Amino acid sequence: MKGYHTYKTCIEACLRCAAICNHCASSCTQEQDVKMMAGCIQLDMECAAACYAAAQLMSLGSEKAKDMCNICADLCDKCAAECSKHHTEHCKECAEACKMCAQECRKMS
Amino acid sequence: MKGYHTYKTCIEACLRCAAICNHCASSCTQEQDVKMMAGCIQLDMECAAACYAAAQLMSLGSEKAKDMCNICADLCDKCAAECSKHHTEHCKECAEACKMCAQECRKMS
Amino acid sequence: MKGYHTYKTCIEACLRCAAICNHCASSCTQEQDVKMMAGCIQLDMECAAACYAAAQLMSLGSEKAKDMCNICADLCDKCAAECSKHHTEHCKECAEACKMCAQECRKMS
Amino acid sequence: MKGYHTYKTCIEACLRCAAICNHCASSCTQEQDVKMMAGCIQLDMECAAACYAAAQLMSLGSEKAKDMCNICADLCDKCAAECSKHHTEHCKECAEACKMCAQECRKMS
Repeated sequence: MKGYHTYKTCIEACLRCAAICNHCASSCTQEQDVKMMAGCIQLDMECAAACYAAAQLMSLGSEKAKDMCNICADLCDKCAAECSKHHTEHCKECAEACKMCAQECRKMS
Repeated sequence: MKGYHTYKTCIEACLRCAAICNHCASSCTQEQDVKMMAGCIQLDMECAAACYAAAQLMSLGSEKAKDMCNICADLCDKCAAECSKHHTEHCKECAEACKMCAQECRKMS
Repeated sequence: MKGYHTYKTCIEACLRCAAICNHCASSCTQEQDVKMMAGCIQLDMECAAACYAAAQLMSLGSEKAKDMCNICADLCDKCAAECSKHHTEHCKECAEACKMCAQECRKMS
Repeated sequence: MKGYHTYKTCIEACLRCAAICNHCASSCTQEQDVKMMAGCIQLDMECAAACYAAAQLMSLGSEKAKDMCNICADLCDKCAAECSKHHTEHCKECAEACKMCAQECRKMS
């Protein structure tokens, strides 16, 4: 049966990315120049939502897991690109997590 | 700005469907013949995950909201088809909620 | 069996509040003075997470639904207080949704 | 700032537990004797919902993270107790993940 063990690496990348996106969004609101982080906060929220849904559908062994991973990979790419513009620790970490997650999600297809 | 107000009808259909899928899955576990409900429980869980993610991405005004709605509509169709085989109140209600949600999600594309 | 029908009003208030919080967070990032909205974005994200978990546990008829509603009510209060400081349409709407959700969640206890 | 790094071990335990609960619920529906697994499916769903909400509130550095971890620990205990009654691989794995998650969540308080 497909599910957690089949997709373990990708599920873990998605869940880690979701948590780090939440953390990055929250940390962005505490920066001096919040306006500069606005796009980052927005994409962090979108990315976290997609990452968790992807992890859920993979864990459940859903037929739609791959399609969900495609959406997730696209949002991870956008979030990584935005985070890469900033030099805060949380953005650098988030860009890394997003890139790894996008890569794992693309392997699914 | 796109978001809650642009997609209100679809968001509400998704959120109602998610809650009713959760309820249906839980109610299925209490039926005399749980084995007969196995497919229903599985699809309820998948559908609820997709519905909530769709509602989130729409509320956030994400570019990926439409793609997410496509996945959601497909899972709603599958769940409605499975629920329609059963005559319990919760399955009938869930089939209805899934059909309405699939319809609203397809209007998005 | 407890679940969707027992808690329908509260579930709907939670899900509506979750979606409106997502929308408010996203809209806040687009305001001229994002820094002023930083606390609002943070509480919107916390509130949305709690609202959806409360709706899920109620829909599933969980024994822990009431405890979850307590957490949700507290976060709704904080979010409503923060949103009430701002005069944007999305913050006013969010404050209203949070107040209604807090009220419904407190009726659960 | 509190968040991902402060609570990393607990967040990871929660996210792993959520994914394994989803997998266990799904696997339970495929067992010969689904009726015997009914309680397990129900608690898997409740536990997964609480685990993800706990991970979210911790990642966001929310003041309510500890209260959420208490709910999560209680549901993990119930799920572990139920899963421990069964000898399938997914239930054994789920009981372990729930115990570890409950332990980490209790350290938070």
